[in-house]
Amino acid sequence: MERVLITGGAGFIGSTVADRLLDDGIQVAILDDFRTGRREFIAGALERGADLFEGDILDRDLLAGAVAGCDTVFHLQANADVRHGLDHPQRDLHQNTIATSNVLEAMRAVGAKRICFSSTGSVYGEPEVFPTPEGAPFPVQTSLYAASKVAGEGLIGAYAHGYGFTGIIFRFVSLLGERYTHGHVIDFYRALKRDPSHLYVLGDGRQEKSYLYVQDCVEAMLTAAAHHGDEPGAHVYNLGTDATVVVDDSIAIITDRMGVTPAIEKEGGTRGWAGDSPLIHLDTTKIRSLGWSPTLTIPEAIERTLDWFETEPAIVLDQEPTTS
Amino acid sequence: MERVLITGGAGFIGSTVADRLLDDGIQVAILDDFRTGRREFIAGALERGADLFEGDILDRDLLAGAVAGCDTVFHLQANADVRHGLDHPQRDLHQNTIATSNVLEAMRAVGAKRICFSSTGSVYGEPEVFPTPEGAPFPVQTSLYAASKVAGEGLIGAYAHGYGFTGIIFRFVSLLGERYTHGHVIDFYRALKRDPSHLYVLGDGRQEKSYLYVQDCVEAMLTAAAHHGDEPGAHVYNLGTDATVVVDDSIAIITDRMGVTPAIEKEGGTRGWAGDSPLIHLDTTKIRSLGWSPTLTIPEAIERTLDWFETEPAIVLDQEPTTS
Repeated sequence: MERVLITGGAGFIGSTVADRLLDDGIQVAILDDFRTGRREFIAGALERGADLFEGDILDRDLLAGAVAGCDTVFHLQANADVRHGLDHPQRDLHQNTIATSNVLEAMRAVGAKRICFSSTGSVYGEPEVFPTPEGAPFPVQTSLYAASKVAGEGLIGAYAHGYGFTGIIFRFVSLLGERYTHGHVIDFYRALKRDPSHLYVLGDGRQEKSYLYVQDCVEAMLTAAAHHGDEPGAHVYNLGTDATVVVDDSIAIITDRMGVTPAIEKEGGTRGWAGDSPLIHLDTTKIRSLGWSPTLTIPEAIERTLDWFETEPAIVLDQEPTTS
Repeated sequence: MERVLITGGAGFIGSTVADRLLDDGIQVAILDDFRTGRREFIAGALERGADLFEGDILDRDLLAGAVAGCDTVFHLQANADVRHGLDHPQRDLHQNTIATSNVLEAMRAVGAKRICFSSTGSVYGEPEVFPTPEGAPFPVQTSLYAASKVAGEGLIGAYAHGYGFTGIIFRFVSLLGERYTHGHVIDFYRALKRDPSHLYVLGDGRQEKSYLYVQDCVEAMLTAAAHHGDEPGAHVYNLGTDATVVVDDSIAIITDRMGVTPAIEKEGGTRGWAGDSPLIHLDTTKIRSLGWSPTLTIPEAIERTLDWFETEPAIVLDQEPTTS
């Protein structure tokens, strides 16, 4: 890799990839519309020479300019509002499926043939096997978000097969760590900052979750990218840890750290919302076979996330709380 | 079912579904742009009261008019030019993926919640198990066509899960029978009508294929639709026969029937073109468990197709030969 375009490069994962690639002496171009990405996250990267292409990924001219000169794309941009997918049923189609097709076409136009793609562990729907391996049965999809990621995976496979692309598809669990801004841990943290005496929990608290530390995730992506080089083909890797925690455990870590003892009110059953998988727990044997392993456990990743909240209160507390 | 919209209703399968639904006393609306559909195929249906909505499925106003008053959609329209997908890499995205999203949105707008969808056995990519069951491992896609069908399946699953749709997804092998106009059998027939002394075959002739008679296919679709009624959920069924034939066998049946003995020239290896699966052979245990079984063997279906060619020379021979 000499020059890499990172779509969604100002986001949680994207900006972490950007910093890491710059550390490795690789040129970086960032495309982001700052709907969820943040300028603070890429200030350092821009100082170190990364180029910023600001705007909507569906702007074909912008995309063409961003990919020019790149040999590799980390396509991490996506509509990430999984929970409200049903309110905007074509948003995932446009921002995820069509955007991925446009990225592949922009790459083809300039001869860039390596793409690393952020898919999701929720493509497994409601699996029957835990931890779920990459070769699990082909499920019925349960969310528009996952459906759009399956569509993106399919496109990448077809480009690998038909045009000789190298496609590396990562099915993630949820991530934690520095720059994390969306999900249970920040929702609980913000709620307890507002009112340490009370916490409202969507679901029964027993929902199992598997998290991965963002730096471990980026290391895994780079490990797989290095392993496959530019050989044509598509490859799928689960990224996660071997363990899970339940929401109640996350809450205990957060409240201990904050020194609060809220009354906890729970509403709903075994899942928080339609399309929320009750459990995404991935078999990571395949990525581990490349020599990678996570450096942090889930509780350690939660602690690292809380560390970051404390050093960046302006970022963590200046937004309206999300509700996922 | 009281009133059914059939997208691609003037096509091979669509027009056969239309006739069958009219036989059963069900009202029928047909949407077709006649790019591959044929007016001859629906002349009888229109005489019997079917309504025609002529134009592109991506025309949202046309689609809204066509779905009005319907409770069920047989969404059979698709870009069917599998072989040339790589020449037009976003055609499948538009005509298949986006079109399917638009159909689902048009249905949601009028409260129609049952969709029967024509997917393809090629979603299994290059499977390791033959015959391939519905629960086969989640593959890397090998064609843009299959990728777009996977995307459509994902959308239907998400609508079933999120909006209470009844989605019935059919993964077909290739079909044969009356109104068949595209594929190996007609290509060979046309070529031999032009020059009975010589036949050019793409591939080594050993490519195994599984075919299903179109009337058996329609019966299977209606069997599954009746079985699931309007219960919310998405269901996947393989449709095919237990057997396979190789291309050489098909050629023997055709040349015997035509009374010709051509010199056969073969070019290429085990597959005809990039993205052509060497074998699609589906496990049909699931659809058979509903009481359905095919009435014709593959050789009988080829014979039935040749019968049709002989009764409809104007349709069969007036087109430029296809090349797939």
